[in-house]
Amino acid sequence: METFDSTIKTLGECVFHSPIQQVKFVSDDDRILDDISEKSFRAAKNGKSEPTFIELAGPRARIYFDPVQTRAAVVTCGGLCPGLNNVIRSIVMSLYYTYGCNDILGIPFGLRGFVSKDHTPFKLTPKDVIDIHEKGGTILASSRGPQDVGAIVDTIENLGIDLVFFIGGDGTLRAALDTWQEVARRGLKRSIIGVPKTIDNDINHLSESFGFESAYAEAVEVIRAAHVEAVGAPNGIGLVKLMGRQSGFVAAHATLGLRDVNFCLIPEIPFELEGEYGFLNALRKRIVKRQHAVIVVAEGAGQSLFGDQELGYDASGNKILGDIGVLLKKKIIDYFKEKGLEVNVRYIDPSYSIRSVPAIPYDAVYCGFLGQMAVHAAMAGKTCMMVGQNKDRFTHIPFEAAISTRKQIEPDGFLWMSILHSTGQPSLINPSKTD
Amino acid sequence: METFDSTIKTLGECVFHSPIQQVKFVSDDDRILDDISEKSFRAAKNGKSEPTFIELAGPRARIYFDPVQTRAAVVTCGGLCPGLNNVIRSIVMSLYYTYGCNDILGIPFGLRGFVSKDHTPFKLTPKDVIDIHEKGGTILASSRGPQDVGAIVDTIENLGIDLVFFIGGDGTLRAALDTWQEVARRGLKRSIIGVPKTIDNDINHLSESFGFESAYAEAVEVIRAAHVEAVGAPNGIGLVKLMGRQSGFVAAHATLGLRDVNFCLIPEIPFELEGEYGFLNALRKRIVKRQHAVIVVAEGAGQSLFGDQELGYDASGNKILGDIGVLLKKKIIDYFKEKGLEVNVRYIDPSYSIRSVPAIPYDAVYCGFLGQMAVHAAMAGKTCMMVGQNKDRFTHIPFEAAISTRKQIEPDGFLWMSILHSTGQPSLINPSKTD
Amino acid sequence: METFDSTIKTLGECVFHSPIQQVKFVSDDDRILDDISEKSFRAAKNGKSEPTFIELAGPRARIYFDPVQTRAAVVTCGGLCPGLNNVIRSIVMSLYYTYGCNDILGIPFGLRGFVSKDHTPFKLTPKDVIDIHEKGGTILASSRGPQDVGAIVDTIENLGIDLVFFIGGDGTLRAALDTWQEVARRGLKRSIIGVPKTIDNDINHLSESFGFESAYAEAVEVIRAAHVEAVGAPNGIGLVKLMGRQSGFVAAHATLGLRDVNFCLIPEIPFELEGEYGFLNALRKRIVKRQHAVIVVAEGAGQSLFGDQELGYDASGNKILGDIGVLLKKKIIDYFKEKGLEVNVRYIDPSYSIRSVPAIPYDAVYCGFLGQMAVHAAMAGKTCMMVGQNKDRFTHIPFEAAISTRKQIEPDGFLWMSILHSTGQPSLINPSKTD
Amino acid sequence: METFDSTIKTLGECVFHSPIQQVKFVSDDDRILDDISEKSFRAAKNGKSEPTFIELAGPRARIYFDPVQTRAAVVTCGGLCPGLNNVIRSIVMSLYYTYGCNDILGIPFGLRGFVSKDHTPFKLTPKDVIDIHEKGGTILASSRGPQDVGAIVDTIENLGIDLVFFIGGDGTLRAALDTWQEVARRGLKRSIIGVPKTIDNDINHLSESFGFESAYAEAVEVIRAAHVEAVGAPNGIGLVKLMGRQSGFVAAHATLGLRDVNFCLIPEIPFELEGEYGFLNALRKRIVKRQHAVIVVAEGAGQSLFGDQELGYDASGNKILGDIGVLLKKKIIDYFKEKGLEVNVRYIDPSYSIRSVPAIPYDAVYCGFLGQMAVHAAMAGKTCMMVGQNKDRFTHIPFEAAISTRKQIEPDGFLWMSILHSTGQPSLINPSKTD
Repeated sequence: METFDSTIKTLGECVFHSPIQQVKFVSDDDRILDDISEKSFRAAKNGKSEPTFIELAGPRARIYFDPVQTRAAVVTCGGLCPGLNNVIRSIVMSLYYTYGCNDILGIPFGLRGFVSKDHTPFKLTPKDVIDIHEKGGTILASSRGPQDVGAIVDTIENLGIDLVFFIGGDGTLRAALDTWQEVARRGLKRSIIGVPKTIDNDINHLSESFGFESAYAEAVEVIRAAHVEAVGAPNGIGLVKLMGRQSGFVAAHATLGLRDVNFCLIPEIPFELEGEYGFLNALRKRIVKRQHAVIVVAEGAGQSLFGDQELGYDASGNKILGDIGVLLKKKIIDYFKEKGLEVNVRYIDPSYSIRSVPAIPYDAVYCGFLGQMAVHAAMAGKTCMMVGQNKDRFTHIPFEAAISTRKQIEPDGFLWMSILHSTGQPSLINPSKTD
Repeated sequence: METFDSTIKTLGECVFHSPIQQVKFVSDDDRILDDISEKSFRAAKNGKSEPTFIELAGPRARIYFDPVQTRAAVVTCGGLCPGLNNVIRSIVMSLYYTYGCNDILGIPFGLRGFVSKDHTPFKLTPKDVIDIHEKGGTILASSRGPQDVGAIVDTIENLGIDLVFFIGGDGTLRAALDTWQEVARRGLKRSIIGVPKTIDNDINHLSESFGFESAYAEAVEVIRAAHVEAVGAPNGIGLVKLMGRQSGFVAAHATLGLRDVNFCLIPEIPFELEGEYGFLNALRKRIVKRQHAVIVVAEGAGQSLFGDQELGYDASGNKILGDIGVLLKKKIIDYFKEKGLEVNVRYIDPSYSIRSVPAIPYDAVYCGFLGQMAVHAAMAGKTCMMVGQNKDRFTHIPFEAAISTRKQIEPDGFLWMSILHSTGQPSLINPSKTD
Repeated sequence: METFDSTIKTLGECVFHSPIQQVKFVSDDDRILDDISEKSFRAAKNGKSEPTFIELAGPRARIYFDPVQTRAAVVTCGGLCPGLNNVIRSIVMSLYYTYGCNDILGIPFGLRGFVSKDHTPFKLTPKDVIDIHEKGGTILASSRGPQDVGAIVDTIENLGIDLVFFIGGDGTLRAALDTWQEVARRGLKRSIIGVPKTIDNDINHLSESFGFESAYAEAVEVIRAAHVEAVGAPNGIGLVKLMGRQSGFVAAHATLGLRDVNFCLIPEIPFELEGEYGFLNALRKRIVKRQHAVIVVAEGAGQSLFGDQELGYDASGNKILGDIGVLLKKKIIDYFKEKGLEVNVRYIDPSYSIRSVPAIPYDAVYCGFLGQMAVHAAMAGKTCMMVGQNKDRFTHIPFEAAISTRKQIEPDGFLWMSILHSTGQPSLINPSKTD
Repeated sequence: METFDSTIKTLGECVFHSPIQQVKFVSDDDRILDDISEKSFRAAKNGKSEPTFIELAGPRARIYFDPVQTRAAVVTCGGLCPGLNNVIRSIVMSLYYTYGCNDILGIPFGLRGFVSKDHTPFKLTPKDVIDIHEKGGTILASSRGPQDVGAIVDTIENLGIDLVFFIGGDGTLRAALDTWQEVARRGLKRSIIGVPKTIDNDINHLSESFGFESAYAEAVEVIRAAHVEAVGAPNGIGLVKLMGRQSGFVAAHATLGLRDVNFCLIPEIPFELEGEYGFLNALRKRIVKRQHAVIVVAEGAGQSLFGDQELGYDASGNKILGDIGVLLKKKIIDYFKEKGLEVNVRYIDPSYSIRSVPAIPYDAVYCGFLGQMAVHAAMAGKTCMMVGQNKDRFTHIPFEAAISTRKQIEPDGFLWMSILHSTGQPSLINPSKTD
């Protein structure tokens, strides 16, 4: 496990007593080991290494902001993800009922809401959010792409916002980091807190990102449909494209959630199309043997098949991926036509239907805690950090640590082993190529 | 209402007593009026017209086939539809438990199973079908397209099949009619019974086709996703393509099932894209006013927009339609680009996910009755007919009547009026064009 | 089929043109036959009987009330039923958008809201109802029991209410009839319209009551649980009590919706507990043979087992039933204890969980039409009638006809035959008793 | 955190090479700290304490049993819990496909299946379990209560069973421990492995028990119904009894999963009924203020209200609890009758409907891993231990550690704090009592 700087910044010494009662407060000294292996412990005990500790989230006995004088703002950025409304609701409810802060703004349409004259921040009260967790999406709406950091901080300053909750992915957390740096440069005391959102479940130092369970639960239903279609037609092939730009967690978990998948293709595991051991021949063997097949492919899988093709970047600054679903569909159809073997390919691309579902209860509970922990952190004067669950505990993670690398499926780990055993898929690489 | 020949053919006089007990048998004289309006009654009473009567379905006191000597076969054809397994199950269970017939064959992969050496009919027992209604699709599998009628009847003759249950759509019912005619030409006594299947709900003389309620219930969830997506992005547009080649019932009912749709486009109602009153300008006005829109389009809508383009026919002999979903997506994007107005279009094409769902309880009950009624008809020696519910009664409909025309949404009826009031959409035709 | 007076009362001649456009209006002459059998037709043609015609629902070209001067009120009464909010929404939306009437009151807590000082009628706008169809229950809340009719009409008069929509069951329709009679006695021109609500699906002259499909769909899930429990324990017995005071439609349809039920007990079919052919011995034989059993019992089944016991009447004036679920549970446990045969009884009474679910799309669409038809009728000056679907058409039914008798399952009809074939249950009456 | 003996017993040195390939094996030296706090680390580093390490689960490079010579058995005990079939399936599939062991027995009806002549162990193959994860319950069936340990081990010996997988709760794990001790006493080399099952989520050293997420997700729907009922009637009170004998996790998580609950009563938090600060008066204040209330009560809450009443023990040896749901219902009705305030209480006891649902995808994935880890452990010759997830890792836990104490909700922890903030409920203890 890589070592990282786990030090959490604070705006200054805490000056107010928390209005919370009858609860075990968390102290800044309540930290946990990042690497909990015996080996690491032995090394540290022997003085051969210095362990990294992670600060625990939770209510502090003393807080930095006076609740009745504090103005907070919430913004949701990037693509939809189940649970956004749950997090918004929890932040508003915690600020209002737990701390007595009732000056809360919603920033509409993502970062754009900070800078565009078309959009105006609006007041959020408990009444506005009481029911929103029943619905998917975000009541604040969202947008993609960066905005001028100076302009964002101008708005924060002009509107007198003390706490800003950024709910978003990798790009948003970078924007939040930039925002903090500009806030700090101007000598302002504003708490910049992140709630990490990634339907791909690829953020470091998190056990799991919110909405992930809801997303792959919905993906399971799509795979079920693909399987029904596959067995319902002569040599039927159900092909499902799922989320996963650089990490195949959605595809992998959905595969394990139903067990009807025969090929699971993810970004972490290269595969070849052609050749005796390539995907197409493996698929042909499956079809000949069983007369149907179900394939799940993560959107970021097989990008090497697109060669040097440069597709540019989307509004969020993400590299535009080659459409592996459409490519596979075409390659499969062409291949079997050439082989003179009838197949019936059913291609499903369900992303919008998946990411817009309401949170399942698991995520409803999890998002509730995330919002509360974010509020506790913000009120305590923490800044430049996000909240997240890790090793069964809620923790504070510095922005820098979160965005440095991505979490991926280990090719020799037990998750991928489970996929191989569940699908029965072979290595899809020709031996000569791996020499 | 058009008049049709409602006479049901029978193979001969009934010769066996039904094994069914303690039930009110249906007689062939138990018929209902097809046109039940007072006006029609008055005309008939005055001798100005002769009404059409429809034979009721149900168990007959005397049956034509000796259950212990009878071999039955079941085949499912064409695209998937919720409830197929329920109908199969009901036919098998009714033959076995109600009549004591235990010689039942499943014909695999549609009509192809009658003629292809690759596929072999296989025995069906209650144990094989006990659980199948819990799953979507068809355990018999299906295929598209016609097969040689002579070869089909050869198989019926060679295998000694007495009763054939064709579960399929328009093309299948035509094939069943052809099969009957060949059977009759050869002087055989075989009962050819149809169970009409059309996810589009467009078969005449039926209140509703099985699977329709399950299908649009699933479509409602997709529209919900499209709405969440639309409100979640700046000027978000959710565009959903649904089934409906010549009839927009799925699109219409799904629209009324959730009430989040702003434009519902169906085959029965022409619309124009361009011009002040065209769809694109109406969409623009909606976006300017409300910043989001949800559009549902049936696959057969707006085909005039493809001009004289001839796309040929698919394996089922259906004219290949222009892809109105993809066209609309492109036209919308181009139009707003030209207008300099940012929109975010989310296009969803969920057909495979919809048609493969298990039957909801409504359809489970309905399919159970359909299968039973089909078995009652077959055992009684009826032939060249299908079963279907109409005016709250289960009836026998001659194949010829069923396939002559299609049921469509009436442009001046209350279903379409409800759509207009629910969506608020205007006529999408420019006045000059309608002169 | 019994004959009834199908004449619909109207408040007077229609005086306004309908604001509805481009729709095929329904005329009062658009009537359908009530008895659509050939036999009835022949008798009528020969002058041996005079048929009953039923008025069709739908928009009228001319209306009685001036939309901009009209005040409407909506009230929901009795127990919860899926679809109540859908009907409320549809009435409000139709009044507002279809007719331009924007003076609409919600009467809270059922009839009590007309008379109690604790509750005040409140304004209903489209904004208030836009989302309510997503939730079960009724936003107006409800209550049981009659209220003083004079006081109800006083409130109608004092508040200047022109149209009253009563959404409720048998008792409510009687109250609506009484209300109309008092309104008429006072010489007032007020339209009193009913939307029949009964989760038992037992109202005459209706194909099906709203919410019924949603209710038994939920009941199916409970039966699924009971079956899982039954097979999961030694000699497991899953016992589920469902709605159905005098009619067993919920129990019967739920039984056919899943096909895991071994005994279905309903009010229409008597059964005995004791004796060789009684229920308990039949259950014992089933347990010995298959080691598990699932029983569904409608709440009104087996009331004769309670003897002369008088339990009084509930607030709605319904006779309080003996709790057949609790009785059966006890009798089963005692019986098997006496027989020395271990059984594990799992008793589930899910009524509140069933009746409070949101409407499924089928009911959402159906309730939408019911509300619209009710508004069309009211605006046209119809009164003392309810709307309902029958023979695939929406119709007007006089209150008197609706409440005269109840719809029940026919012991020799095909619904009950299907139950017997699906469950395999024998007659549960000892032969000596039936002599 | 208490210290416990985390040493895992093994049957001897591993003698076979694992057939698993291309995977990172787990070594017995791969252990993690049990207490991961910085404080604990500092104490250990300074030599003031010796930390406890927990062995990680996963495939071993060398295994103890020869797969082709090994006979395995699986048994499910106690009450139903979502995910049982998933665990069974995973064990069978892992033994068969991962290790090549195809001699697997299912023990029917729990421990009884080891000893009763009425039940015979039967062979389990992949074909038998391929689809079982789609259904709730257990295909092996279950039973409650202990059986003679000598007889159990006799059967293990007689049938030549090498690996026994006990899937069950506290009592079952004790039985497994006893079984191991008898196995060891006889000098046998048999691997006794537990997969802990508790819908209450109260087993120590586990982050979460399987089925828990599925269970409270279903409970959320019941609470939704209770809320709909509560708001739908005058002074409506929805009262839901949920699982939780000694720990209120189901009630607490279900409360946080929907946020419509006003009082959450759990075993860990005492409450009083009477007095100014007691529950009944708090409920009255809520009703007066808001006219409705939703109450969730865990079955083990408020047991002190039953006084010294001794109810005995059930077949599993669990103390029979007073029925707090029925008691609360009665107390509420009596209290409000006495106060002259009408309330409408809707009591729902949904336990059987909850525990019998199929596993949601979260649990499907989790149960898959649990089964695999159990098989890895057994094949490696581990024994007298259970598998479980803890701190995001799969681990081996000795039976003794697992059954020593129960996991409970901390009264001053953030879970309970969230409940208090979500419900707004006060302390329900009268101050004088707490002096």
